Amino acid sequence: MNALEQLIDALRCLPGVGQKSAQRMAYHLLQHDRAGAVRLSEALRAAGERVGHCERCYTFSEAGLCEICRDDGRDARLLAVVETPADQAALERTGSYRGYYFVLQGRVSPLDGIGGREIGVRQLLERVQDGPLEEVILATSFTAEGEATAHVLAQALRSRGVKSTRLARGVPVGSELEYVDLGTIAHALVDRR
Amino acid sequence: MNALEQLIDALRCLPGVGQKSAQRMAYHLLQHDRAGAVRLSEALRAAGERVGHCERCYTFSEAGLCEICRDDGRDARLLAVVETPADQAALERTGSYRGYYFVLQGRVSPLDGIGGREIGVRQLLERVQDGPLEEVILATSFTAEGEATAHVLAQALRSRGVKSTRLARGVPVGSELEYVDLGTIAHALVDRR
Ligand SMILES: [Zn+2]
Ligand SMILES: [Zn+2]
Repeated sequence: MNALEQLIDALRCLPGVGQKSAQRMAYHLLQHDRAGAVRLSEALRAAGERVGHCERCYTFSEAGLCEICRDDGRDARLLAVVETPADQAALERTGSYRGYYFVLQGRVSPLDGIGGREIGVRQLLERVQDGPLEEVILATSFTAEGEATAHVLAQALRSRGVKSTRLARGVPVGSELEYVDLGTIAHALVDRR
Repeated sequence: MNALEQLIDALRCLPGVGQKSAQRMAYHLLQHDRAGAVRLSEALRAAGERVGHCERCYTFSEAGLCEICRDDGRDARLLAVVETPADQAALERTGSYRGYYFVLQGRVSPLDGIGGREIGVRQLLERVQDGPLEEVILATSFTAEGEATAHVLAQALRSRGVKSTRLARGVPVGSELEYVDLGTIAHALVDRR
């Protein structure tokens, strides 16, 4: 493969990008935006090298502890458990949550052999021992797998005597949290059960 | 901006990628495909450094002359003029054209101040002097701007005594050549007028 073909091929690692889009992207960059291509190349390299996971909440972070975990002005009695950093960002953007987070490595999916261990239940249980926690808010998606994940987590937490709640069903059933409008999420947060 | 934010920002240089998609792409790469991110970073850098334009037909090429221009087994009596390398690739994939190509720098757009000079009419006229050319096939899009481009080129070529044809109107009016199915393009090529 020549360099152009390799670029088209490499662009297909992006989610939602097939052969046709990849070709269009490559042609666009080479014809109209070489500076953008250089910038993207550098940004990919830098992010790959510098972005790791927070030691405490497992979200993306360049430092050992992320900004939120370093912020001691938040409510240490609350911990919201989410499936992805994207879901965390959605919850954070509502502006109506002031506790801390724990970011799972996805959600359980028995058919794919992904259970509690794979998504980080052990790390979550370690985290809940650490600090004056009163409530764990299970903010996983309202999909079948998100519900199953919440169920697994609730059981594990109960065995440690930790109370967990679920976002209220204001969040439309069957939807990914990341794509829900902020108002709905904010409302669901207040009505958590 | 931190490295993650810079990556999201840089991904927006890709056509059709907004803030939301860029975020999803960045999260996906960092969470699930760091090897893909490294490969894409390298491919962008390599393509930027190595892919230039063919000296003869102006398509993308790593060498001074592209593969097609170096191939002396093609029909030197035919030259197809296209708007972009993507259109050239579409024409080439039909397998029904065996002549050479000339790739314009886009198409004329009087409102944006893009005329014959900007898209490479001078280079095209130089190219048609060079070789036993009998027919220039104007394979620009059947959009208003593509038609205007064909008109500008036909006039310029006529002034040099060079005969030009247009793809038959089998190509759906108002469509970009790149997105037309191969059979339609092949048919339009045979019926060129
Ligand atoms: Zn953290
Ligand atoms: Zn060439």
